[in-house]
Amino acid sequence: MVSAKNILIIGASQGIGNGFVQKLINQSDTGHIFATYRTENTAENLFSLKNLYPHKLTTITVDVTHENEIQQAVTIIKSHVNKLHLVINCVGILHEGELQPEKSLKHLNTDNLWRYFQVNTIPTGIWGKHLQPLFKHSESSIFAIISAKVGSIEDNKLGGWYGYRTSKAALNMLIKNMAIEYSRVSKNTIVIALHPGTTNTKLSTPFQKNVLPEKLFSVNRCTQQLLSVINNVTINDNGKFFSWDGSNLPW
Amino acid sequence: MVSAKNILIIGASQGIGNGFVQKLINQSDTGHIFATYRTENTAENLFSLKNLYPHKLTTITVDVTHENEIQQAVTIIKSHVNKLHLVINCVGILHEGELQPEKSLKHLNTDNLWRYFQVNTIPTGIWGKHLQPLFKHSESSIFAIISAKVGSIEDNKLGGWYGYRTSKAALNMLIKNMAIEYSRVSKNTIVIALHPGTTNTKLSTPFQKNVLPEKLFSVNRCTQQLLSVINNVTINDNGKFFSWDGSNLPW
Repeated sequence: MVSAKNILIIGASQGIGNGFVQKLINQSDTGHIFATYRTENTAENLFSLKNLYPHKLTTITVDVTHENEIQQAVTIIKSHVNKLHLVINCVGILHEGELQPEKSLKHLNTDNLWRYFQVNTIPTGIWGKHLQPLFKHSESSIFAIISAKVGSIEDNKLGGWYGYRTSKAALNMLIKNMAIEYSRVSKNTIVIALHPGTTNTKLSTPFQKNVLPEKLFSVNRCTQQLLSVINNVTINDNGKFFSWDGSNLPW
Repeated sequence: MVSAKNILIIGASQGIGNGFVQKLINQSDTGHIFATYRTENTAENLFSLKNLYPHKLTTITVDVTHENEIQQAVTIIKSHVNKLHLVINCVGILHEGELQPEKSLKHLNTDNLWRYFQVNTIPTGIWGKHLQPLFKHSESSIFAIISAKVGSIEDNKLGGWYGYRTSKAALNMLIKNMAIEYSRVSKNTIVIALHPGTTNTKLSTPFQKNVLPEKLFSVNRCTQQLLSVINNVTINDNGKFFSWDGSNLPW
C-alpha cells in the first residue's frame, strides 16, 4: 500500500513554488505539504492557503543561505512525518536590487558572483545533506530542483549572464552528484534538474520582451507541465536534466 | 610578421604553472613571460628562473581572490607589452589545511564550498575582464584555463568532491561564456578549458594511491602534453574542453 505523499516545496511564497503548492494541495494523493518562505511580507498567497488547509499545510520560514535555518526546518518536518516523497526546490535568483545579470565581463564582480552561488547553488546541497534521512524508505520518491536551460554549457550560444549561468551549471553538477549519492541508500529516489521555461514571475519580468507569447508560461501552466514531467520519470532518469516538455537537456 | 609571443602564466610558483614557465622560457618564439605567484615562501623555483632570465621573465605577486591585485598585475603587464599571445591560468585548489574534498553530503558546508568557487571559478572571470584589452589584436592568441575532467557533469559516475566538482563545472561555463565574448572582439583568440590528467603535484599528492603509474604524469610530461594541445588548436576549437591527449571532453 502506498501512503499519501508527503511533500516539501522550498521557496513557496511566490512564483513557481507557490504554484506547486496551489496545485498539489488539492490532489487526492497528497498527504502533508511543507512550504518554506523567506519573508512574511511576500507570503500572503501562502498564508491564505494555510488558512484554507490548516491541517494539510505547514509553512516554515527559512532563509536558505543559512544552514542552521535549513536544519531547523528539517527538524520541524521530522516532528510531523518520518518520510518525504516529493521535494521541489524552487529558490533562485536572477536579479535583486542592484544585482543584475552581467551583460559582459566588465560587469563581473566577486560579491555578485558569490550571491548567485549562495542562493542558486549551495542551498540544494545543504538541503540534500539534512533531508537525506527522510528519503531512506522504500517508496518512490523524487527530489526535483528548478535549474535553467541557460545553465547548460553545451547549449550556451549567446554568453552573458555570467553569475546566473555559472551558478546553474554548478547546481547541475551538484544535482548529478546528489543523484549518485542518494541512489546508494535510497534505491527508489530520483533526483532531477528541471528547466521550467520562461515563466511569468518576478524573476523573468525584466527579461520577457524578447520571449514569444506562446513561450511565456503562466505559473499555472508551468507547474502543470513540470508536474507532468515529475509524474513520468522513472528510476532510469535519476540524475538527468529535463525541460518542461519532458525532453532531455544536455549539460 | 608574427612577433615573439608574450605569455602570462597565472599560478607559476609550483606545480603545473611552474612547469609551463620552465618549458616556455627556453622556446625561441617566446617574447616576454609574466608569471604570478601568491606567496614568496613557495616561489623559490620561480625566483631561480628569474635570476637566470632577468630580462625575459617578470614575476608578479597576486592573490587571485582579490580583484585589485589582479588589476594591479594587469597594469604591470601593460607597462611592458601591449598584447598577449598566451595566457594559462593554473591556479586551483582541491585541499588546503582543514579543507578536504567532501566524500559525501554530510561533509558539505557553505564556507568550504565558497572557498572552492573563490579560488577555482571566479578568478578566471576577473582575469578575463581585465586582460581583455591585451587580446584586442589580430595575431593568434590563446587563453587556456586548467579545468579538470571531474568537472564534467556528463562524465561524473562516482559523485563526491562536491566543492571541487561544482567549482570546475562553473569554471567550464565561465570559460564557454568568455570564449563567446572574446570571439566578438578578438577574432583570432581561442579560449579553452584543459584537463591535465593526474599530475604529480601537491594538489594530487593525497589522492594518488589509486592512480596507475602510467596515468600519473610528471609536471614535465603534463606541460609538454598540454603545450602540444595548445599548439594544435584552431579557431574552430574556441570554447571547447580538451583532455591532455587532445581529445574533446563533454561538459
